[in-house]
Amino acid sequence: MPTIGPLKLKAQILLDAVPAMGPGKADLLEAIDRAGSISAAGRDLGMSYRRAWVLVDEMNRCWRERLVETQSGGGAGGGAKLTDQGHRILRAYRSLEAKLAKAAAGDDLEILTALLREDMAPAVERA
Amino acid sequence: MPTIGPLKLKAQILLDAVPAMGPGKADLLEAIDRAGSISAAGRDLGMSYRRAWVLVDEMNRCWRERLVETQSGGGAGGGAKLTDQGHRILRAYRSLEAKLAKAAAGDDLEILTALLREDMAPAVERA
Repeated sequence: MPTIGPLKLKAQILLDAVPAMGPGKADLLEAIDRAGSISAAGRDLGMSYRRAWVLVDEMNRCWRERLVETQSGGGAGGGAKLTDQGHRILRAYRSLEAKLAKAAAGDDLEILTALLREDMAPAVERA
Repeated sequence: MPTIGPLKLKAQILLDAVPAMGPGKADLLEAIDRAGSISAAGRDLGMSYRRAWVLVDEMNRCWRERLVETQSGGGAGGGAKLTDQGHRILRAYRSLEAKLAKAAAGDDLEILTALLREDMAPAVERA
């Protein structure tokens, strides 16, 4: 997710309380697109296969069409790729993030950055 | 924090890993401004006095000047109010949030909203 100076932004698309898309899921989609499998994508992100599979399952259940399709056989070693819908949703999410980052850069953030200390002041012993 | 349809946004100003400002701290500042004390503000937000005090202490240590000043005596029952700096930082943060919310409304979010299901699809029993 975009970090601009001291600002950290997080955008989530929620379906009820479940994040249908967010920074971690978008990273996972990109990793699947690169690696061609859920297990390899999970490994690339330092995530267990089970965790990666749960995130993919949540995404597939939150959107009208699947975002990731697995090849028949489909076990831990099977291939996986993004559907057209998966690409479309990923693109829209990354574009939204970029617009947020652009909107954040400006005078409010400059004021906040200028007023922030460089290091946190030490805790004061209370009598 | 702004929620726009299915989108949840979160903006944090970090000093090292500590959130110097974020949705919860901004709410707490507003509650202190209304209630005139840290304990009453915490109660209004369903937060323990200890928790409210820790958040105020973190804020006061992250910024160049204090955001909240407590009246002498300063125990759990003492009064508290925002400093000019506290008002200024709160105003800049809320303004930043509003700009993010405005930037988020648009075609990317429309695409994402249209592709999202209305309810999560049920989990499928796996053979």
